[in-house]
Amino acid sequence: MTKMKALVYHGPNRLALEDKPKPKIIQVTDAIVRIITTTICGTDLHILKGDVPTVTDGRILGHEGVGIIEEVGANVYGFHKGDKVLISLITSCGSCSFCKKAMYSHCLNGGWQLGNSIDGTQAEYVRIPFADNSLYLLTPDADEEAIVMLSCILPTGLECGVLKGQVKPGDIVAIVGAGPVGLATLLAAQLYSPSQIVMIDLDENRLEVALSLGATEVVNSSDGKAVEQIMALTQDIGVDVAIECVGLSSTFDICQQIIAPGGCIANVGVHGKSVELHIEKLWSSNITLTTRLVDAATTPILLKMIQSGRLDAKKLISHRFKLTEIIKAYDTFSNASREHALKVVIKNVNEIE
Amino acid sequence: MTKMKALVYHGPNRLALEDKPKPKIIQVTDAIVRIITTTICGTDLHILKGDVPTVTDGRILGHEGVGIIEEVGANVYGFHKGDKVLISLITSCGSCSFCKKAMYSHCLNGGWQLGNSIDGTQAEYVRIPFADNSLYLLTPDADEEAIVMLSCILPTGLECGVLKGQVKPGDIVAIVGAGPVGLATLLAAQLYSPSQIVMIDLDENRLEVALSLGATEVVNSSDGKAVEQIMALTQDIGVDVAIECVGLSSTFDICQQIIAPGGCIANVGVHGKSVELHIEKLWSSNITLTTRLVDAATTPILLKMIQSGRLDAKKLISHRFKLTEIIKAYDTFSNASREHALKVVIKNVNEIE
Amino acid sequence: MTKMKALVYHGPNRLALEDKPKPKIIQVTDAIVRIITTTICGTDLHILKGDVPTVTDGRILGHEGVGIIEEVGANVYGFHKGDKVLISLITSCGSCSFCKKAMYSHCLNGGWQLGNSIDGTQAEYVRIPFADNSLYLLTPDADEEAIVMLSCILPTGLECGVLKGQVKPGDIVAIVGAGPVGLATLLAAQLYSPSQIVMIDLDENRLEVALSLGATEVVNSSDGKAVEQIMALTQDIGVDVAIECVGLSSTFDICQQIIAPGGCIANVGVHGKSVELHIEKLWSSNITLTTRLVDAATTPILLKMIQSGRLDAKKLISHRFKLTEIIKAYDTFSNASREHALKVVIKNVNEIE
Amino acid sequence: MTKMKALVYHGPNRLALEDKPKPKIIQVTDAIVRIITTTICGTDLHILKGDVPTVTDGRILGHEGVGIIEEVGANVYGFHKGDKVLISLITSCGSCSFCKKAMYSHCLNGGWQLGNSIDGTQAEYVRIPFADNSLYLLTPDADEEAIVMLSCILPTGLECGVLKGQVKPGDIVAIVGAGPVGLATLLAAQLYSPSQIVMIDLDENRLEVALSLGATEVVNSSDGKAVEQIMALTQDIGVDVAIECVGLSSTFDICQQIIAPGGCIANVGVHGKSVELHIEKLWSSNITLTTRLVDAATTPILLKMIQSGRLDAKKLISHRFKLTEIIKAYDTFSNASREHALKVVIKNVNEIE
Repeated sequence: MTKMKALVYHGPNRLALEDKPKPKIIQVTDAIVRIITTTICGTDLHILKGDVPTVTDGRILGHEGVGIIEEVGANVYGFHKGDKVLISLITSCGSCSFCKKAMYSHCLNGGWQLGNSIDGTQAEYVRIPFADNSLYLLTPDADEEAIVMLSCILPTGLECGVLKGQVKPGDIVAIVGAGPVGLATLLAAQLYSPSQIVMIDLDENRLEVALSLGATEVVNSSDGKAVEQIMALTQDIGVDVAIECVGLSSTFDICQQIIAPGGCIANVGVHGKSVELHIEKLWSSNITLTTRLVDAATTPILLKMIQSGRLDAKKLISHRFKLTEIIKAYDTFSNASREHALKVVIKNVNEIE
Repeated sequence: MTKMKALVYHGPNRLALEDKPKPKIIQVTDAIVRIITTTICGTDLHILKGDVPTVTDGRILGHEGVGIIEEVGANVYGFHKGDKVLISLITSCGSCSFCKKAMYSHCLNGGWQLGNSIDGTQAEYVRIPFADNSLYLLTPDADEEAIVMLSCILPTGLECGVLKGQVKPGDIVAIVGAGPVGLATLLAAQLYSPSQIVMIDLDENRLEVALSLGATEVVNSSDGKAVEQIMALTQDIGVDVAIECVGLSSTFDICQQIIAPGGCIANVGVHGKSVELHIEKLWSSNITLTTRLVDAATTPILLKMIQSGRLDAKKLISHRFKLTEIIKAYDTFSNASREHALKVVIKNVNEIE
Repeated sequence: MTKMKALVYHGPNRLALEDKPKPKIIQVTDAIVRIITTTICGTDLHILKGDVPTVTDGRILGHEGVGIIEEVGANVYGFHKGDKVLISLITSCGSCSFCKKAMYSHCLNGGWQLGNSIDGTQAEYVRIPFADNSLYLLTPDADEEAIVMLSCILPTGLECGVLKGQVKPGDIVAIVGAGPVGLATLLAAQLYSPSQIVMIDLDENRLEVALSLGATEVVNSSDGKAVEQIMALTQDIGVDVAIECVGLSSTFDICQQIIAPGGCIANVGVHGKSVELHIEKLWSSNITLTTRLVDAATTPILLKMIQSGRLDAKKLISHRFKLTEIIKAYDTFSNASREHALKVVIKNVNEIE
Repeated sequence: MTKMKALVYHGPNRLALEDKPKPKIIQVTDAIVRIITTTICGTDLHILKGDVPTVTDGRILGHEGVGIIEEVGANVYGFHKGDKVLISLITSCGSCSFCKKAMYSHCLNGGWQLGNSIDGTQAEYVRIPFADNSLYLLTPDADEEAIVMLSCILPTGLECGVLKGQVKPGDIVAIVGAGPVGLATLLAAQLYSPSQIVMIDLDENRLEVALSLGATEVVNSSDGKAVEQIMALTQDIGVDVAIECVGLSSTFDICQQIIAPGGCIANVGVHGKSVELHIEKLWSSNITLTTRLVDAATTPILLKMIQSGRLDAKKLISHRFKLTEIIKAYDTFSNASREHALKVVIKNVNEIE
């Protein structure tokens, strides 16, 4: 059988579930993976709007997945046919100057390619370049729903938010934006035991979810008074770490207004426009502001946390669909507020039946 | 003798060398220091313009100095009458929450007080609060001209620029602004052995000085093409560290345009206005942007570097004046470009004659 | 009233609860604290055996406590009569070269003085030098039993064990010794989310306590096969962090045999003899071995963790006594195995009645 | 032409320069390099004595070299025929768990293989596995003598000594052992601007070389009074960093006796026996002791330092030989004290004639 089902992008707002040729090994370092589970990322919605020019007509979408190795190239060392694996959004050569700095997202021969410059995981099969650097071995009984949260969203929260923000025991952390990435950041932050985590959003349902996932306080910013509320919560000192998980000028602005002297602002959100930086106030505050693409360098750590039961990644999942229902899944995820959607998981029918 | 000469601020653009009462011990942790050498800071010029509202009519200016201990309070442990000492611009209690994080500039009981909220060092005598935390013991033969550069300018360059910028061996460093602070940053950067240091300024004389102090390349930004030149110098990758030593929107902008992925922008300049941050480009670049007030936490290290002959701080000095000529010294320093002035040193006549 | 009850050391194995003069302010930076709660440290047992020569006949013992400020010296900034405070075992000047590096235990004017070179906390009142650096403000309703665990044992576990051992999310941590310090280290380690914590001891009761406090595996080393068991648990790779909490050659040896390449051995135990270091094996293993006295630099962080309910310090307490029963408390704590004793808390009768 | 000259090991104390088959590509990630320059390492002398059991009869020795790419495998991305390259002693897969931590020396598929488990560089040609991770591109005019010092000795000094020892500006550093590795450590240490570097050795000639390479003080330890001298030099405080570059109990012991509280002991030497660790003194000193194999992770940095003229690696070279004279070169290097030998460089005759 050489055909498979795959979700194909045909320009802005045009998606189709189609028959496509099953992928083949091209490089000796490739692997072919049969997908068990995939999911949809906020970035996929940006692609769908036409905001990501590197994604062209005919591209199979998706950069998240758990599956079974179908075939490996001659120079793949760590994986064999039949292995259950996590697919990372980042594929990387492991040799270039950026890989040597663990900046895999900037890999000169890889980076975020899946569902972007090459075909992705929202399909029955996918070709994974640099398999040794891009896959993670799972036990046969590993929970694919929990683990597919490690393809993108949890390393994003941990690396771009928590590690860049230097979250430490006892810190007061504010996370602006309680969408899936903000909630993943909330879970990841707890690995470093801050004493308070304040979650800020406009959506009351998401704030309730945040409380159930470990936020100690929530602030609904729809009245424009989030800054006052957070400063009151912190005796007018501000927070040690502010993590921006939205990508708007207004949410960035909250971060710079609530940061305490010596604090860190970690930007996670994707921004389409410049922002006004109040350096006339911040120049004397000993603050650090960071940006980062997810490098997926922490995936092995997160895997251990899930395997040891100390990170309950499945709490990020609100809906489940079959691959044949993926168009419906996109609709649900696109209307997250109306649908009370967090992450939606897509299962390959052949795998689950 | 209870009178002394001191430079007094009387509102914008009004300075006078006057007779003032010699200071006395107020707290048991105070020391009285007889000034041998002081100098003028760029901040003193801001004060003179009326830009620093905490400085009020009647204030003796100056936060830099080397002198001899005249008297110590009952609870001063580390100093005795006759000790030669360096005065740090920062006085700090050593006990508050900020001091415990080595953020002495934000000390709840001190910080930058000298020549600001209390009388300063441009006088024959000065009272130093928290003497044990604010003075550094020198040998009797220590070179006061070299060492007075440690009161403010060299810790500023090292802490706000070099350490915050995380300068490492092999790095390409750009320093925007070749005034005294930029040049001090240039000297401090060399302690960490970057492979290239590019200095950017509008003033050709200062760029020549920069080359003599260790810059490997200089770029005159008066043609508006500094960014292109620096990108060409770095094979279009950009610099590892960009240090802003001016405090303007245009110079900040150069920094954000030339920073390489993974790089650090360290802000040293004092900014009066907000800047436009191009986060729509930088969000994916893994960059770090920092601000800091000088905490003078590195003063002991810098003292060792001077004592071991590995840091030639006197290269920052262009002019020397007597305390009686301090008004003229301000004029020279205020017209730095015309006078080819870097740091101007003021000596107490009684000490040198 | 100028007399008070106090536990006095009169040479090896001789303790007495006696009437002693109530302490007075000596330095302007002192405070007098009325003790509500104190406890006994393993170090107090060493003193009792005569192993600590700096403790001389007539010394009031104890370096842990929570109390109420009775009086402050003229130069104490942060505390007032009536404040409820935590007493740290470390008193420090905040100004010397060691204090400037946050090595308060090596303070040239302080360090571990209480119940050592000056009178301590196992009394109704105590004089605290450098009060601003040695006390921590509590709310009136703060739980003194939980918080007295922060005087010594929890900062010891966190600083000497967890921070020096560089415990990170996902790590496998081994703690050798499940006495009070080992158990405190176990609690502190969980602030950094290791995936496994293996506890090693000879006492089955303590290992059961360890399981209840968060250990994921326990190993009874009485059969001499601890190393084999731990290597088996880790697929023969070894542990990322090994923390020595006993102070014997045999327990140190376990640590160096189980450490994985790239791992850290953090020594917490007090050693009376040298050990054999197997550098003929370890030279090529990229390991780090650390020692440290507790500096109590993390006390503010631990206070926040207790206040936020994320650290349940009271689990370390097994027995409670009145100050009048302190001799009996020493007997219980000295026979910890027989008595199943962890920390024993001593309460001032006047405070609790 | 399929034959080449190569230095072959035939068991303890038996070396021969022989004709051997020219190596061929085996893996698609291999490269074949024509050697221009190689050198001899102290480790080669250990091999010659029979101390390294992984080296078997028939092995071509050598793990250092600069050469020209002769051929590359199909999956080599970064190099092409004719490129001038530095060969690192470490070959690494870039994908295994150790490579992901930048512990390339412990690579599960590579590590130190050249001249050990596979044929090495003391020959006309060598096969380099994982070429993309094991070679560094040079400009055609790069100075091969200077750069061959980066194959092993300079990264060893920088990584195992200077970085593990955490050398900082202003530090007092002691280096025990002034052989080639100790002297390379001396050069590398200066990249971080310590204020004093004390060199300890038994050989007066080497100590003189050390002074010419930047040591600020030297101590001849042949009278057994090195510790006293160093303590006197440091006002009885000791040194901030002690780097062991010999591998003997006596030299390790000097390090542990001279280390200041808070200091680092970095072990570089290869040890054949255990040592006595005076933890009964060091337990309270807040010290850090490290071991490490060289990972060659810093090679790109060192290359930049040489290219920018800030590191004069050629100062480590005392003798030059042709490949045809390599037996004589071994004799000279084996009798380093008699011959006043530092590094001896071997040149391929065909390349230089």
